[in-house]
Order: sequence, then C-alpha cells, then structure tokens
Amino acid sequence: MGQATDLPRNEAGIAAALGILKQRFGEKFQTGQSVREQHGHTTTWIRTQAPDAVVFARSTAQVAEIVKVCADHKVPVIAYGTGTSLEGHVNAPAGGVCIDLSEMNEILAVNGEDLDCVVQPGVTREQLNTYLRDRGLFFPIDPGANASLGGMASTRASGTNAVRYGTMKDNVLALEVVLPSGEVITTASRARKSSAGYDLTRLMIGSEGTLGIITQITLRLQGIPEAMSSARCSFETVDAACQAVMATIQYGIPVARIELLDAKSVGAANAYSGLDLPETPLLLLEFHGSQSAVAEQAEMFGDIAEEFGGSGFEWTTRAEERTRLWQARHDMYWASMALRPGAKGISTDVCVPISRLAECVTAAQDKAAELGLLSPLVGHVGDGNFHMLPLIDMADEDEVARAESFVSWLNDLAISMEGTCTGEHGIGQGKKPYLVRELGAAVDVMAAIKRAIDPDNIMNPGKII
Amino acid sequence: MGQATDLPRNEAGIAAALGILKQRFGEKFQTGQSVREQHGHTTTWIRTQAPDAVVFARSTAQVAEIVKVCADHKVPVIAYGTGTSLEGHVNAPAGGVCIDLSEMNEILAVNGEDLDCVVQPGVTREQLNTYLRDRGLFFPIDPGANASLGGMASTRASGTNAVRYGTMKDNVLALEVVLPSGEVITTASRARKSSAGYDLTRLMIGSEGTLGIITQITLRLQGIPEAMSSARCSFETVDAACQAVMATIQYGIPVARIELLDAKSVGAANAYSGLDLPETPLLLLEFHGSQSAVAEQAEMFGDIAEEFGGSGFEWTTRAEERTRLWQARHDMYWASMALRPGAKGISTDVCVPISRLAECVTAAQDKAAELGLLSPLVGHVGDGNFHMLPLIDMADEDEVARAESFVSWLNDLAISMEGTCTGEHGIGQGKKPYLVRELGAAVDVMAAIKRAIDPDNIMNPGKII
Repeated sequence: MGQATDLPRNEAGIAAALGILKQRFGEKFQTGQSVREQHGHTTTWIRTQAPDAVVFARSTAQVAEIVKVCADHKVPVIAYGTGTSLEGHVNAPAGGVCIDLSEMNEILAVNGEDLDCVVQPGVTREQLNTYLRDRGLFFPIDPGANASLGGMASTRASGTNAVRYGTMKDNVLALEVVLPSGEVITTASRARKSSAGYDLTRLMIGSEGTLGIITQITLRLQGIPEAMSSARCSFETVDAACQAVMATIQYGIPVARIELLDAKSVGAANAYSGLDLPETPLLLLEFHGSQSAVAEQAEMFGDIAEEFGGSGFEWTTRAEERTRLWQARHDMYWASMALRPGAKGISTDVCVPISRLAECVTAAQDKAAELGLLSPLVGHVGDGNFHMLPLIDMADEDEVARAESFVSWLNDLAISMEGTCTGEHGIGQGKKPYLVRELGAAVDVMAAIKRAIDPDNIMNPGKII
Repeated sequence: MGQATDLPRNEAGIAAALGILKQRFGEKFQTGQSVREQHGHTTTWIRTQAPDAVVFARSTAQVAEIVKVCADHKVPVIAYGTGTSLEGHVNAPAGGVCIDLSEMNEILAVNGEDLDCVVQPGVTREQLNTYLRDRGLFFPIDPGANASLGGMASTRASGTNAVRYGTMKDNVLALEVVLPSGEVITTASRARKSSAGYDLTRLMIGSEGTLGIITQITLRLQGIPEAMSSARCSFETVDAACQAVMATIQYGIPVARIELLDAKSVGAANAYSGLDLPETPLLLLEFHGSQSAVAEQAEMFGDIAEEFGGSGFEWTTRAEERTRLWQARHDMYWASMALRPGAKGISTDVCVPISRLAECVTAAQDKAAELGLLSPLVGHVGDGNFHMLPLIDMADEDEVARAESFVSWLNDLAISMEGTCTGEHGIGQGKKPYLVRELGAAVDVMAAIKRAIDPDNIMNPGKII
C-alpha cells in the first residue's frame, strides 16, 4: 500500500511564507497544533502529516494571493474542503500551507432555465441540494459523505447515483482554477458542450489539487423527478445478487441507484442504524421518473430478482422509508467501523467491467476469508464498483501485513480483469503504487503534465505521481 | 477568421524521413499529387495544404514506427481518418507525413454484457452501427458525416444525438495513443468509471491529433431502444421554435434529438432531398424508449409546440418516414451548398446556454441579413448549438470581408453570452483566434501541455494553439 512518506522540507521558504501570510491574514492564518492536525487528518489508516499553517480563504483573489506567496518561496500548498477524502489527499508530507476553502461557500448563481449553477468550492452537496429543493432542481452526485463540491471535483467523485447520472466529470461544465503561478484561469464556458481546445475542465477534475486550486465550479443540474421509488431485495449469495445487477443493467432498466451490501454489511447496518434486515446479501435500488415509470421499473426489477432467487422484494415511493434505507446506506462506513471498535478501516475501491463483477466480488470475499480479515463489502454495483473495508488492528504487524497483501492482491485482480484500482476515491498517497501497475507509461505523461504546469511541485506534492 | 498560414519547413528532415518510410512501406507510401492533395483537402473554405507523403498504416506498431521516424527527423505527422473535419484539421502547413488510418478499420471486440466495444480508429460510425445492429446495440454519436471514430474522438464530435447521449467525451472509456515519441500508452481501463490519476482520455479527446495519434478506442454502447418516434413541427418564427425547444428541455422531456432548420434550410432540403415541407422554421425531433414512452413524449412535445404557435405537428414510429426526414437533415450541408453553386460554405458552430438561444439565433439571422449574406441555419438546439453557413463567392473580396466580419461578430456574441465559438467542430486552423478570445490565459496552459508532451511540435503543427 502507498505510504505517507515524509518528503524534504524547504524550511527557509516555509518560514518566509508563513511570516508573510501571518501578517496578511491575521486571524484567518492559524498554526495551532489541533487545527493543523485536523487539516492533515484523514478518515483512513494513513498517518496524519499536518501542514505548517492553515489559511482560511474567503475569495479567489485571496487564494491567488496565498498561492503567489507560496510560489515565490517554493512552499507546498494543499487545498482542503471537508477532509472526507480517503487516500491521504490532504496530508502535507513536505509541510507547507493548507488553504481551507470551507468559508468560500456561496452559491453564486442558479440558472434554472439552463439547468446549471455556479458555486464556490466550499459549498457542500447537502447545502446545494437544500438550496435547490424549492426550485425543483437537484445535483445528483452523492458520494455519501457531505463533501465539498471542490473536493468532489478534485477527486472525480461519484457514489450511489453514478449509474444513472455519471460522475463529477460528467456534471461539471467549467471551472475557475488558481494555477501554481497564482494566475487565475477559466477552463470553459457555460455552454452545454464545446470543442474549444484541450479539455482542461476534465484534466483538472480528478487531479487532486496537484495542478491548481479550484475556486469556482459551474455544475449541471437535474430537475427533481416527478416520482422516486426505492426497492430492496435479499439474495442467498453475493453471486446471485451480482447476476441480478448484471441483468438489470443489460435489460436497460434506468436505475438511479443499485447498491450491494454483503451479509456482514447488512449486519453492521442493522446494528448501527436500528434496522432488522435479513442478514444475507442485499440489493438496494432507486428509480427516478414519472409515477408510472418508477412503478414499472421497480416491478421489472422484481421479476429479474426472482429469476436469481431474490426474496423479500419490496418497493415503495414513501419518502420516510426511502430516506431511512438510504441513510443507513450512507452511514455504512461508520457502521462498518463500529463492527470492530479501535480498528482502522483500509478502504478499497476497485471497479471492473460488469461482466466480471460477480467473479471479482466472490473471489475478493474468499480471499479476505482465507487471510482471516473481517472485511464488510458494499458496492455501487451498477458501475461495477465495490468497496471492501478490512478492519485492522494496526498494532498487529501480522494482520497489517495480511491487509497489505489483500489490498495489493485485490487491486491486481481488478486490473487483470480490465478494471481499475480506484473507481471514485482517487490515488492520493495510498494508491500510488497501483496507479503505475494499472496505467504504466501513461503515468509518465501525467508526470510530464505535472512538471509543465507546476514546475516547482508546490501543488499538493506527493500525491498521484 | 483563422488562416491556413504556411509554417517553416524542415526540408532536410522531411527528405530523410520520406526516404526511410518509402523503403519501409513500399506501396503503402504514396507521394502522388492527387493523393497528397486529397489528404490535405477539407470540406471547408480553408485552402488545401498537402502533406509531402501519405502512409497507409495497418497497425499500432506501424503507426508507432512512422511516428518514430518522424520524431527522429523532427518531421510533422498528421493523422487522417475520412477528411470530413471542417476547420483545416488535416492540412499540413509545415508539410510532413500524413498517416491515413482508414485501413485500421477492425472492430476488435464487442462486449455485449458490458455495453462496450473496442475499435480501431479507421472504423466509421456507420460501419460500427451496421455491425452492432444484429446484437441489439448501437453507438449513439452521430455528427452527420460518416466520420471515422478516431477522427470523432480527436475533434470531440457530437451531433444530433448529443442532447440525450452526450458527446464523444461521454462515450469513450479508454484510448490507445501513440505519443510523439513513438511510445504507445493506454489512457484508462475498461471500467465504467475511474479516479485513477489525470484524465488522459478526456485530454486526448478533442486534442485534434496535436498530442498523439489514437490507434484504439474503447466505446460505450447503448441498447437499441424498444421504440423510436420522430416528430416534426413548423413555426412562424425561429424565436417561437427556440422557445419551444427551451420549454421541452426544461420540462425534462428526454428527447434523443431536437433539430432546428430555418426557412432557408427547409427550402434547401426540399430542393435537395425532394421534400415538400412548409418553408418556415422547422423542428425535427426523435424520441427513444418503450412504445408507450415514445408516444407519450411525442404528444407532450406536441402540446408544448402548440403553446408556441407550432403548426403541422406530426409524429410517427414508421421507420421509412423517420429515415427520410433524418437523411434530409444529414444532407443539409450539401443541400445548403447547392443553394449557391460555386460558392464556399464558411461553417460556424457557436453554442450558448439554452436560455440565450432564441436571442442568439435571432440576432445572428438579423446580422447576416444586414450584411447581405445568404446563410442558412441548422442547429442541435437542445444543446444550444447551431450552425450558420454563409455561402460566399471567394473571388468577391468585399463579400469575403463581410463573411469574416460576420463570423467574428457571431463568435464574439456567443462568447459574450457565456457560450463557445465551437460546440463540436473543433479549433483546427479556422478558429484559433477565437479560442484565445474565449478562454484567454487557459490557452497558455494548453500550450504548456503541448510543449510537455510534444516538445518538437511534430504532432499536427499549426492547429489549436
């Protein structure tokens, strides 16, 4: 697994930049240990590497100013939204300045006629959707955590709705970005489509703050569907559940969400969220459309589920029931962690072509069992993406070694099945070795781009490449 | 407008590379004038700049070999598919070697369960769809011309189906690319989604052969819908038609196609395709879905059209009628050209947020009339994208000047409306000045990427940047 290796620090530069920023930003410049550690903290097993200072920026001009000071002194700059990333993205392995963007949380424009909006990067997805609700609009990308939209763009996030609405790459029209020089660019217009030169929007999405800092985002929006229905169905085996998913996708049923929980995850959800679901593999689905369409789609899925031995099939359009189930799904990370208090969860994130999903999931479960790892599984299975979360006592060296072996084996398995080591979490520090295994010489092209745009390597150093 | 300016030629390098390639490729290496001119020929007003030689490649290894020879001698390399691009993309302003990819036209794999396929770049969209039909699958991107899929990826093409299915950027999973060094990379896996590092797939899509040559493409496919319906409706004014489009999109009717023809274009279609449509602004639509859904959608549109004074509303699911109308739409470029034999068509391609569409279209028509330009209009109006095609006698300097003034004015208007100078044609040589007006300093970032990946500027020099 990737390590949180310390990188050489530019002590003189850091001291000089901190002096200037302290004078300039007053109370918005902080160096207290707890603030610094919180900004280097991640929800993962990866150890914290705190920045030397945190500056709370309130405008693009301020971000540009901070970046210019850091560029002048060749000091690392790390952007921070809500800190919910999972691969050490916000760590500061060479120290430097963290720019906290949470106060840049204005919704600048909602263009209802164009189904788009313009937001600052610190706006969270829940904040945006609360704001949009009365206008009959919503933003569909939902990674579970109440992440910032800047962070979601930076990691090319997706989540439970991606099977229908795509990922961040499909739902961002344009970005404003502060470059490593401090210069500000806009990557595209508000047009729905464009062939105007290189697609800098998509290059920045998923670049994890290594090429610039996103300071404004133009997002595509959707009309709130007339109706939503949720369905759930239990299966005897994970294989049967995956077969049902494959059939559902291949029949072209336009599911908005199709999520798998294995028996361990269902047990964790029952305990954490007070549910009483049968503790066997479970599919949770959601359908969006007209009243008749969501009923038809739920029932079509019911027929498919039956073919694969599904039981306890139920569907509903009642909001309370839907919300309860989906809240439980969103809380799965914490529900899983509660299965073994004190343990660290080592998140995995493979994604394979859907024809290989059942095989990959089954092999992964067998391997975890063989290695004696407690490892609940959930998945955005409509995309072929699933997460196993080995719960590890980090003080037990043998167990850590087995977890490392498992993660490495699983990523290699996914790659051998023409899949990826990361469907949505990103590379950060944790997945760097696997990126090279997956894409080989293409990583050299990424490195060349990084050097061209950020020659002094000040933007989130030690991540991706 | 952008010019086909000649660039300095590396005569010694070109002579050396041609000598090597001639020996190596025998009959697949050609230098006859007509072959060279055909490969520098474009369907536009931009003058032909022929390459020094054309090599017909039959494999990735051959493309890599040709590129390596050219790299060794710092000789330009221009990729060629079907030559249907519109902005001088295949011109050779510094001479060099054209690699014709039309013989790399194998469909390498169709993964029906995964709804994807792998093709060589010379496969055309019609070839692919003919091959897929019996499997119940189709590839939805349809720019009208029977373009090669490599060329469509290179220009980030879209066309009539984009309002529902997106553009090439949304329908390519991965690319194999020969870099300017001759090295071969794969940009991504066959997974539906990935956060594995920089999005090189999207960077290459739309880069117009300036960063590398696409030698293999993994495409997303769609199931052929159970039913398709087509509708047409005439309007008194272009403004009323645009208002109907805006309402249709905002109501969330999932149109697969929604195309506008102004009165001049309808007249041209009547004459060229033997139709007898009323010569007023016309909307052509297509709906994909279940039998009941396509009927419901067509009728919902009928209600909207009525609100905006639409007349002659008709819809059908009969294949012959649908095909006849859409063939006429696809032939519009040639139908328009036939309005003024001997004239050159100067294609425009602006795309604006849909809330500005009616205003932009109306202003553009008024401006063309004011300048005395015959300029039929068609548009993929569901995306806010439309084409006016001033038909110009290139021997009439005053008329050419008026056309230049019109194109410049129209691109500036679209940019001022938060739109783009090119929704789908790309920059090539013709739109270079407008790219800078549209994206400013972002073009410097594109240039930095270009220098990093292609330091000797051998890949399609003189395009985009």
